[in-house]
Amino acid sequence: MDDGRAADRGSGRLRPRPRDLQPALTHAHLAARPAPRPPADAARKRRPRGFRDRRRPARRARRPDDARRPRRRRGDHADDPARGGRDRPVRRPLARRRASRRAGGGRPVSVRLIGVGPGDPDLLTQAALEAIRGAEVVVYDRPSMDPIVALAPPTAEIHCVGLRRKQRALSQDQVNDLLVELGRERDVVRLKSGDPFVASRGGEEARALRAAGVAVSVVPGVTSAVGAPAAAGIPLMIRQLSVTVTIVDGNADPEHAVPPPWEAIARVGGTIVVLTGRGSIRRIARRLVAGGLSPKTPVAAISAASRDRQQVLRGTLEELPALLPPPVTFVIGEVAALDLTADDYEDVVTYAHS
Amino acid sequence: MDDGRAADRGSGRLRPRPRDLQPALTHAHLAARPAPRPPADAARKRRPRGFRDRRRPARRARRPDDARRPRRRRGDHADDPARGGRDRPVRRPLARRRASRRAGGGRPVSVRLIGVGPGDPDLLTQAALEAIRGAEVVVYDRPSMDPIVALAPPTAEIHCVGLRRKQRALSQDQVNDLLVELGRERDVVRLKSGDPFVASRGGEEARALRAAGVAVSVVPGVTSAVGAPAAAGIPLMIRQLSVTVTIVDGNADPEHAVPPPWEAIARVGGTIVVLTGRGSIRRIARRLVAGGLSPKTPVAAISAASRDRQQVLRGTLEELPALLPPPVTFVIGEVAALDLTADDYEDVVTYAHS
Repeated sequence: MDDGRAADRGSGRLRPRPRDLQPALTHAHLAARPAPRPPADAARKRRPRGFRDRRRPARRARRPDDARRPRRRRGDHADDPARGGRDRPVRRPLARRRASRRAGGGRPVSVRLIGVGPGDPDLLTQAALEAIRGAEVVVYDRPSMDPIVALAPPTAEIHCVGLRRKQRALSQDQVNDLLVELGRERDVVRLKSGDPFVASRGGEEARALRAAGVAVSVVPGVTSAVGAPAAAGIPLMIRQLSVTVTIVDGNADPEHAVPPPWEAIARVGGTIVVLTGRGSIRRIARRLVAGGLSPKTPVAAISAASRDRQQVLRGTLEELPALLPPPVTFVIGEVAALDLTADDYEDVVTYAHS
Repeated sequence: MDDGRAADRGSGRLRPRPRDLQPALTHAHLAARPAPRPPADAARKRRPRGFRDRRRPARRARRPDDARRPRRRRGDHADDPARGGRDRPVRRPLARRRASRRAGGGRPVSVRLIGVGPGDPDLLTQAALEAIRGAEVVVYDRPSMDPIVALAPPTAEIHCVGLRRKQRALSQDQVNDLLVELGRERDVVRLKSGDPFVASRGGEEARALRAAGVAVSVVPGVTSAVGAPAAAGIPLMIRQLSVTVTIVDGNADPEHAVPPPWEAIARVGGTIVVLTGRGSIRRIARRLVAGGLSPKTPVAAISAASRDRQQVLRGTLEELPALLPPPVTFVIGEVAALDLTADDYEDVVTYAHS
């Protein structure tokens, strides 16, 4: 969808912005293009603080019951058995954390993994918006994230590394290499759909960066596993129906050490949310039924949740909803028949296929 | 913690704001107090649009590949087999949705369930912040949410209905009744920790409201199940270690129709996140081991995630981390040993108890 627009815009412009350049971005292509770099002072002024760097002003002195409250621990007391012994408090003094980010010749260099939510820019967190608005370098995945990337300043260098017309421009290893390369010299804002650490490769990117000595911080986001059902009025937990939510990466990926144990997931029951499982949902449904779920178990398919083109269809495990355009989030379980925000709500909701 | 401050502030003030009034709010107390009501015009101007009401301006005409894209469906085509047959598209025409919210004598009345994230106001979404800043009536649960409630306008009527000094001011039924009563006459912003539909009673409140004819909308938030691990540098899914996240409401509640099937959850393995399970974590650990998880399985306990007083401790299922002040989120699984945002990160992380 973006290629057409980029071509239209690019044709009439003398100096196309970087986001207009990449119909099929390659690694070599990137290396050949010198990055526009804003003056260091401006960049430093604009740079927002990361989620983990923030400290709110202390207001504790005003609390009369302070003495009874457990002390806030900041140091690493691993050697002090009186203060928690072998357990390891993780927050470290701010100065120490900051120091480690200044390895790159006096400037803090890092990659921030930012969860941007299911798609609607209104579901960006304050921390994510602040990071994007002050970004020096933005790396993101899909044309559908364009409205969010548009919030970055015009000086920002933009890299789209993900799917375009079903083709992944860069492999995950290439993305990791690019992030390491950029993160060694500059502050990088890496946008991830939903939350960076849920059914996304944010964890792998963070590991690759840390192995290369680049500092990483994370801003959690509204995962589609939560945002998509909300957009369809589906409560994931409701005590009388479900006290568990199992979120599964449904992408049949050969790199999965262990594929999802669908039969065991079926025995847990409750609510099951399948992300990135659009291509394999029929196989998944068969295995869930084999694991003991009733074929009549309600299923909701939510496409492009929270976006303008959102669609929700409902069915059951034996009569799955029609295929919708990606991205699709599937909710499986009794709750999938509910729509608490529908206009014609009645407390007993009949299933679409009953 | 709030009682002391409220008393301090209240003592010197002629007209204490509503949020200063309730050391132990009762339903009768509320009924006796006439609510300050801003002029209708001002309220209407200030009222933000809900998450589900928003429409972004159409930009579709510019896309050259429009004809090949599936049509966006808005109507209910349940009777038209040619347009998706028995599946039920859920988005309805805006006019119809709006009309149903004007049942209360010409004014739209509703309750918006707003997820506010794990605690740091920086993790509020844009939609949540907009709703709070324009709130007419705010209902919330805990003193720890005070910094977020403080973002409401001074004219807003504030109700704290939750735990104070371990005592629940109102029962869930009383909260439901209060929301129905308020929501019948005014626009109510109901703040929920994390996400309203994950291990919270947002779903029950929505059902009670709908049964009473009050319109409900939902703004999803960063659930603590995602935000707390992120604050500890823990990736919930990383292909080589885990492709599932099971979120469990660990609160041993007699109203649970079916208690969480811990042995089955253990057999799924992957990553397990236990919310509100601080009091029962030892029993939960025993049942997970009985279900087949290794006693050496890493556990991370994250207290007051994203807040100033955040603490993270690590251990294993057989040697659980020391008890931390609530709220605590537990992460169980191989990923719980990782901290991808630590300063002293090494790719192989040793467990605290090894």
